[in-house]
Amino acid sequence: MKVAKFGGSSVASASQLKKVTDIITQDPERKLVVVSAPGKRFADDIKVTDLLIGIGTSGREEAKGYIDAVIERFKEILTDLHLPTDVLDEVRQSLEAVVHGDKVYENKMDALKATGEDTLAKVLSLYLNHLGHQAYYVNPKEAGIIVSDEPGSAQVLDESFDRLYQLRDRDGILIIPGFFGYTSDERLMAFPRGGSDITGSIVAAGVKADLYENFTDVDSVYCVNPMIVEQPKEIHTLTYKEMRELSYAGFSVFHDEALIPAFRAKIPVAIKNTNNPSERGTRIVAERPQSEQPIVGIASDDGFLSIYVSKYLMNRERGFGRHLLQILEEEGISFEHAPSGIDDMSVILREEQLPPEKEEVVVRRITDELKVDTVTIERDLGMVMLVGEGMNERIGVAARASQAFQQASVNIEMINQGSSEVSMMFGIKENGIIPAVQALYKSFFVENNS
Amino acid sequence: MKVAKFGGSSVASASQLKKVTDIITQDPERKLVVVSAPGKRFADDIKVTDLLIGIGTSGREEAKGYIDAVIERFKEILTDLHLPTDVLDEVRQSLEAVVHGDKVYENKMDALKATGEDTLAKVLSLYLNHLGHQAYYVNPKEAGIIVSDEPGSAQVLDESFDRLYQLRDRDGILIIPGFFGYTSDERLMAFPRGGSDITGSIVAAGVKADLYENFTDVDSVYCVNPMIVEQPKEIHTLTYKEMRELSYAGFSVFHDEALIPAFRAKIPVAIKNTNNPSERGTRIVAERPQSEQPIVGIASDDGFLSIYVSKYLMNRERGFGRHLLQILEEEGISFEHAPSGIDDMSVILREEQLPPEKEEVVVRRITDELKVDTVTIERDLGMVMLVGEGMNERIGVAARASQAFQQASVNIEMINQGSSEVSMMFGIKENGIIPAVQALYKSFFVENNS
Repeated sequence: MKVAKFGGSSVASASQLKKVTDIITQDPERKLVVVSAPGKRFADDIKVTDLLIGIGTSGREEAKGYIDAVIERFKEILTDLHLPTDVLDEVRQSLEAVVHGDKVYENKMDALKATGEDTLAKVLSLYLNHLGHQAYYVNPKEAGIIVSDEPGSAQVLDESFDRLYQLRDRDGILIIPGFFGYTSDERLMAFPRGGSDITGSIVAAGVKADLYENFTDVDSVYCVNPMIVEQPKEIHTLTYKEMRELSYAGFSVFHDEALIPAFRAKIPVAIKNTNNPSERGTRIVAERPQSEQPIVGIASDDGFLSIYVSKYLMNRERGFGRHLLQILEEEGISFEHAPSGIDDMSVILREEQLPPEKEEVVVRRITDELKVDTVTIERDLGMVMLVGEGMNERIGVAARASQAFQQASVNIEMINQGSSEVSMMFGIKENGIIPAVQALYKSFFVENNS
Repeated sequence: MKVAKFGGSSVASASQLKKVTDIITQDPERKLVVVSAPGKRFADDIKVTDLLIGIGTSGREEAKGYIDAVIERFKEILTDLHLPTDVLDEVRQSLEAVVHGDKVYENKMDALKATGEDTLAKVLSLYLNHLGHQAYYVNPKEAGIIVSDEPGSAQVLDESFDRLYQLRDRDGILIIPGFFGYTSDERLMAFPRGGSDITGSIVAAGVKADLYENFTDVDSVYCVNPMIVEQPKEIHTLTYKEMRELSYAGFSVFHDEALIPAFRAKIPVAIKNTNNPSERGTRIVAERPQSEQPIVGIASDDGFLSIYVSKYLMNRERGFGRHLLQILEEEGISFEHAPSGIDDMSVILREEQLPPEKEEVVVRRITDELKVDTVTIERDLGMVMLVGEGMNERIGVAARASQAFQQASVNIEMINQGSSEVSMMFGIKENGIIPAVQALYKSFFVENNS
């Protein structure tokens, strides 16, 4: 049994939905389908979700225009699929009810936004029925997706999984709208960003699927940012851990939280292209066999800074590191890494974590409370991460990597490699990111001398 | 004005003391002299300090034997120097008073141990007088070394420095016994290990010396452990920071605390050989000009372990790193480094910090309190440190270093380089230390291709 999730671009138009039904009906294992709301059909198009947000954030007159646009969008899809449009009457009524305030919504925005996924799920099941397939729209309440009472950032509750498991016994293809669930007292709540991916992952974990297929508009995950290296190699298999390290810095495959349910249930995830479904795609698995290639990908990101502190005999002072991190915690600052020398410690964080007014407070607290010899802040740093499980068991990865930096004339300011076996982090100046990543790609992926 | 400190082997015998007086009298700037107690004259010899400890830890009869041995040792020195021995009567009396308990000492051991340095200082000033020089024995109380009330681990109090500055006005050569000071209510207290170095450093800082000369029995500091590399190169100049990083792992130039007063007062320190005073020696300074050589030394040590923890989405959890370090702090464990990945963190510590019974508690607390996915302990780790200020401004140090590890077939398990510009740490298996350090030495100090 497979769970297939289709993203916004895969359900943007009637022609896209035809591809989706082809994919679904080609494999009898694809019994559970999760859908997003219709996305952009062309670069300047507006996503249905953005139109729905427009309804919630505009005055009454403008809101009507947004409602018309939403209805028009779905009407076009239904007409192109030769389906009746009467399903939209109820949609219009409920959207108008929100605008007129006929019904009091605690979290109006969640209810508005969910309309996109919900309507699309109904449209898709109608179309499958029209084609002669046994398919059912299943509301998340009926499916058993029970969530916490947090508008716009609901968390799935554990009891959902047992309920979802019951879906295995149902006949036909089940179409579930992504992005939302219900509290135990039946109030609609939306998930945070990446919400349809979350629904897919929850459903896959609940029904104990053999595979969670995530259909999108790219053939696969690339081993390096295609903005930096032209036509980079595809990654065919990577582990959850590798995906997580890659998505951290410059990769946007998935919102990290989205995969947690699938990850915990050890469900493999496939990333596939709706527009090119015969392509191999990328598989994300719990474990993979050691390959010849020591690293699977190179991630990079800019906008970091480091707080460097030094104090003679620091390493004799029990609690110093803890105290430094505690000051940051108390000031509400998250950090990324904390490499250390004997008498010094650097803390690396994203620049937005330390606006100038906070910088002053933090520097003063470090100076006063830790009685350090020096505190300096270095901005405009970039991070480059080599990612690959088992990487640190290969003698020579560090050698090759640092040679690549040298060839690119990029100085390494910081290196951090724990015993994690998953990544090696290099801190450099921001302006070194592009040459460094290009040199690393050449060394690890082009020159075949591993 | 220079402060010259002579270590145990430099004052072990009359012939050594002749070298010492030659050194002192050769340079009129050497106005302040700090001495240790007589050390070993040959491999199986017993240090005077150890004889004195014997007095304090033995029964009354055995203690008498130790007193005789101490007196005999000084008598031989005095006789060989053609000096009268009546100065020893008072020494014998006070040692016997300790044994008979005629005088109640709160900290008997401190008083006993201090006798070695104190007597030697008297002997040396007598000898200088005998040679026709104006020299004075100056007791630490008279010199103004005021310390905290901590037997065996006294700390100098700030008021000492102003008092010591007065010594500049005195005529002649002043001989001060190392290793002890007095509380403000005039009770004798000994410094911790490396105590004579501490006295030298305090005096140098107090009188604002131009140079603190530390005379010992080696020509200089070597760039690598001579047990690993035969006849390694000498280091002529290194900074305090570099010395500190080197002394941390396998180097025993100085006890780290000893240099703090000199460091704070920015007094340069020279390490010289009493037996070969014309040798250039090693100078430790606050700052040094950038040299061609990117690193000054390679330190290494074994006996480390790492605690590795991983947890999906760890880096989203504000306070995780702080909490992990706090658990260690609460269990009384000091750590050395804490390199991190996105979802994992390693903490490196010395093995003696985590005996098996503590390991169980720590692993349980980490599992329970942090709800991690994995905790693993890896023992038998070694650390190799490349040390050199400004090192990280040179593109290619990391490349050369990791190539050397590769040539030695030693896998790098961890790398830690902060923005400190002083050191780069490599974590490896213990059995890789010797081949790795030899390969690094060859690459950085023998092959002249920096």
